[in-house]
Amino acid sequence: MYIWLARDNHAISLPAIPVMFADFQRVGIIGRLDKPVITDSLDLVVDVLKKSERDILIEEQTASLIAGNNGKIVSRNELHDCDLVIVVGGDGSILGIAKDLVDTDVPVLGINRGRLGFLADIYPDHIESGLLAVLQGSYRLEVHFLLEHSIVRDDELIRRGIALNDVVVNSGSITRMMDFALYINEEFVYSQRSDGLIISTPTGSTAYALSAGGPIMHPTLDAIVIVPMFPHTLTSRPLVVKGDSEIVVFVNSEDDFPLVTADSQEPFILQPYDRVYIRKNPKGLNIVYPTTHNFYESCRSKLDWGSRLGGNNR
Amino acid sequence: MYIWLARDNHAISLPAIPVMFADFQRVGIIGRLDKPVITDSLDLVVDVLKKSERDILIEEQTASLIAGNNGKIVSRNELHDCDLVIVVGGDGSILGIAKDLVDTDVPVLGINRGRLGFLADIYPDHIESGLLAVLQGSYRLEVHFLLEHSIVRDDELIRRGIALNDVVVNSGSITRMMDFALYINEEFVYSQRSDGLIISTPTGSTAYALSAGGPIMHPTLDAIVIVPMFPHTLTSRPLVVKGDSEIVVFVNSEDDFPLVTADSQEPFILQPYDRVYIRKNPKGLNIVYPTTHNFYESCRSKLDWGSRLGGNNR
Amino acid sequence: MYIWLARDNHAISLPAIPVMFADFQRVGIIGRLDKPVITDSLDLVVDVLKKSERDILIEEQTASLIAGNNGKIVSRNELHDCDLVIVVGGDGSILGIAKDLVDTDVPVLGINRGRLGFLADIYPDHIESGLLAVLQGSYRLEVHFLLEHSIVRDDELIRRGIALNDVVVNSGSITRMMDFALYINEEFVYSQRSDGLIISTPTGSTAYALSAGGPIMHPTLDAIVIVPMFPHTLTSRPLVVKGDSEIVVFVNSEDDFPLVTADSQEPFILQPYDRVYIRKNPKGLNIVYPTTHNFYESCRSKLDWGSRLGGNNR
Amino acid sequence: MYIWLARDNHAISLPAIPVMFADFQRVGIIGRLDKPVITDSLDLVVDVLKKSERDILIEEQTASLIAGNNGKIVSRNELHDCDLVIVVGGDGSILGIAKDLVDTDVPVLGINRGRLGFLADIYPDHIESGLLAVLQGSYRLEVHFLLEHSIVRDDELIRRGIALNDVVVNSGSITRMMDFALYINEEFVYSQRSDGLIISTPTGSTAYALSAGGPIMHPTLDAIVIVPMFPHTLTSRPLVVKGDSEIVVFVNSEDDFPLVTADSQEPFILQPYDRVYIRKNPKGLNIVYPTTHNFYESCRSKLDWGSRLGGNNR
Repeated sequence: MYIWLARDNHAISLPAIPVMFADFQRVGIIGRLDKPVITDSLDLVVDVLKKSERDILIEEQTASLIAGNNGKIVSRNELHDCDLVIVVGGDGSILGIAKDLVDTDVPVLGINRGRLGFLADIYPDHIESGLLAVLQGSYRLEVHFLLEHSIVRDDELIRRGIALNDVVVNSGSITRMMDFALYINEEFVYSQRSDGLIISTPTGSTAYALSAGGPIMHPTLDAIVIVPMFPHTLTSRPLVVKGDSEIVVFVNSEDDFPLVTADSQEPFILQPYDRVYIRKNPKGLNIVYPTTHNFYESCRSKLDWGSRLGGNNR
Repeated sequence: MYIWLARDNHAISLPAIPVMFADFQRVGIIGRLDKPVITDSLDLVVDVLKKSERDILIEEQTASLIAGNNGKIVSRNELHDCDLVIVVGGDGSILGIAKDLVDTDVPVLGINRGRLGFLADIYPDHIESGLLAVLQGSYRLEVHFLLEHSIVRDDELIRRGIALNDVVVNSGSITRMMDFALYINEEFVYSQRSDGLIISTPTGSTAYALSAGGPIMHPTLDAIVIVPMFPHTLTSRPLVVKGDSEIVVFVNSEDDFPLVTADSQEPFILQPYDRVYIRKNPKGLNIVYPTTHNFYESCRSKLDWGSRLGGNNR
Repeated sequence: MYIWLARDNHAISLPAIPVMFADFQRVGIIGRLDKPVITDSLDLVVDVLKKSERDILIEEQTASLIAGNNGKIVSRNELHDCDLVIVVGGDGSILGIAKDLVDTDVPVLGINRGRLGFLADIYPDHIESGLLAVLQGSYRLEVHFLLEHSIVRDDELIRRGIALNDVVVNSGSITRMMDFALYINEEFVYSQRSDGLIISTPTGSTAYALSAGGPIMHPTLDAIVIVPMFPHTLTSRPLVVKGDSEIVVFVNSEDDFPLVTADSQEPFILQPYDRVYIRKNPKGLNIVYPTTHNFYESCRSKLDWGSRLGGNNR
Repeated sequence: MYIWLARDNHAISLPAIPVMFADFQRVGIIGRLDKPVITDSLDLVVDVLKKSERDILIEEQTASLIAGNNGKIVSRNELHDCDLVIVVGGDGSILGIAKDLVDTDVPVLGINRGRLGFLADIYPDHIESGLLAVLQGSYRLEVHFLLEHSIVRDDELIRRGIALNDVVVNSGSITRMMDFALYINEEFVYSQRSDGLIISTPTGSTAYALSAGGPIMHPTLDAIVIVPMFPHTLTSRPLVVKGDSEIVVFVNSEDDFPLVTADSQEPFILQPYDRVYIRKNPKGLNIVYPTTHNFYESCRSKLDWGSRLGGNNR
């Protein structure tokens, strides 16, 4: 059965993962504001929704990018009442909306206008056909888990946040390192003086964690990877633990004021002996994909698995 | 609660993982034959077992290393009837016995005489105290899953085997590469011309896969890592998938005769267009550890997480 | 001067490296025999040489691929008398001819029919223009140094060979490792038990050494890189030493029979306590490039420096 | 000659590198001020110098750490007139004094009080014997080259600096990346959006560059390595070029304000379209080592080349 697939290197997309149906009547739209180039795509999305007789809710800042009177203009918060939110932009735009929607269970569909994407998988040329298929119930739903992090100072919780890709604890400057200790499920793992750690979900494993040397993790894997940043212990290596692990990073010096960032958003400055607790968020983000979506296909095109090094050897 | 732990970098071993009790009445012994140095340890093990009034079964080849008449001499197969098998040697010795015991559910306890170990965690100096504790019911049981591989030629199954660490599909020589295609759960992943792939369990993630650039995976993680060997696609990276994945490697050229090895045992020579199916074995290996056993402690001492690189910078 | 270059990301090729002139009257031709597809290119090369009124010498096996009576048919050895040898094939074909020509100072020009190449840099579409330019004296000459290796057993030299890319000392099987000690310029570097070492020239640094984690070295750098293969010491890293270093690899066990390969050719089986001496060959290979040749351009297209990972982060 | 060395794994230090003689009459002393622990070592150094009847010059801030009236107290600048400057601290202390002394040709001898070191190679227990040997003319002089960097804004040179280890051009925050283009010897190499680049000397190759994945370079190699930081092109790899290369990094976006740091000192903030020129400094730093100093020995002890990974495989 497999043989001919292998011989000509073309894969056939089998409907291995069940297709789910839902009625997306109220559809929200939000776009990436710093990219005027997305206007065309926004207009097209509105068009398709109109033809499909959906109730359209447009986030207020996005509305300024769309010509004509096309739907109800709502605040970002009001998107919570939708059956589906369409994000026009790229993976970064989905990162941006994730924390607003994660507690609501509202699924997200990404239209990709950015460079590369693992989350937004409808491309400009396929907006009409792709969106119509989804509206007609032909799509795949994938739940991507998020990381919750809590910062504790003097036994008091001072901040909480969530991340779809990663939580990074970092010295804050290449001229400094940070002393920290890592605990997982109340077990001591190591203490280190280095630039910090990237704690990443499977979703984030193809982002920053990958460029730091982490492995690629399949999106459905229930695991967290901890990737050391420029470790000064040569033997420090990426560590993959179960998705329900509780990870604690201690600032282990009275001189260090490292930074915590979630999905590369605005950093928070830690103080000596602060503790950062990281674990899976109770709720995940529901991402809607076309049925043609395939993680390995994304890897092949986006990580360029097809390009070859070889040549002058063997 | 964590703070003082972090400040002085000493971890306290909390009894986080439940201790299980079982009655180990019939105890088998098998030793690493090529290491005469283990004789002392074997004698000591026998001694402790006698004092504890256990029924002792000694594998026949191992018996020749033990002075005196100390127990029933049995074939390797008869070890299947034990309540516990003690392996004196090292991680390699546990690899050797794993495939004999995996279908029997008989747990294994390792006495470490080798250089380094993640599986055999009682050291020569602690044989008496460590073994007594285990016999008195104070131990931890960890189930390590194995990989089963099936080789299919012309739609016929021609060979089956299991591995505790890894299955390696390899070109067989550094003067050759191999063309192959990788499928996971019936999805095409990539086709490649390279030296091959290491498919590893969490147990094997600290062995060969690690030296090829794979991540460390916690032993309780239900995942498999696929690590490319000398990939000629620079973007090929370790890939972590769910433990229940079905992985297929196709020999994708009429000129290639690669090798399959399981736990680095005798290689099997593949023929063009052979398929190697790899998936989790239905049964895992039950490994008995002292209650003091801690995976991260093993990493710290064995992977030398304590040694530092830094110095003349920052 | 640089500013506008950077702003639009287009580089201008400045004639930074002097163009040399030589009279290529007697021109040899040799082709890659296992690729019938090169016949067109061979015919075209002969055509251009005829029009340019050169004396054509065709290697005898290659001659069978060329239609008509087009030049003098000579043995591989007689190519030594040429002013220039044109190799039609790829980097591998240049590797093949390198050891025949290196002692003669005859320069080599590569016509690339293979997948990727750093050595053969005239592509099929540019044979006529590229070759004419070279014949008219517009080219760059780059000397690529080779590694000489000598195998000493019981203080006797038993074998000598040369390599343009790399000398590999390898355990010979993934089921075995090898014990060896490394000395550089009579200084002890380390002893290791691992799969072996790749000792590579700058030319080889973009081949096998790269897939093992070595750095890219500019072809004009006078340096040798030593890359450990699957090192079981996590801290073993690629080591770059001066080009005039004398490197010695000792087989350091009575049980090991590792292999030595030069440019991935037929392996030679070592015996316990054999020594492999590796140093720069007194003569290098003169490679003729079009004046448009640029190493970084080759890297960009062949190592795909243009493809980007980023996207869903930051 | 080598055989027995290899068999028992003990290297013999051959006096392969010539020993030079010089008369160190005027000897300066400077210490690491933030480490009161060095007082003992300072006192001992002064003692040995007194007994050897040298003229002692003590840097004024260091003088406050030394009991008694022991020599002439001088400013940091006046150390320029010494025949030798002794630095008590570690590699970092030598980094600190390097830029003060590099133009004067005054050699530096390091007494190591820090954790690990490649530059300061006399340890506390050997101060008396080590220092006496050096004063009697038994030492090795190694010249370590430095990198000079010039920052050009609107065609005007606005800053110049030097570094013994590395020049780092970095986005300045993990929440940002930077767009830049790299040129070497007026050739375009690549443009990239990433965290930045580490440009390192052989001396720096065992420091920050190593933790970012760069190779180890022998201190006598005349080469520079360029190591990408968290490259978002997976194929970006460390690149080793000749020591006399002129490297230019362009800030290639109107939105980026990256940082330049030399030897991890105070960062300088770049503006869009700034250019950073990096090349070898005309003068190097003369470092005095005991004759027993051996680079590979430093690697073995400091990078822990002795520790092994293996164990449960093969």
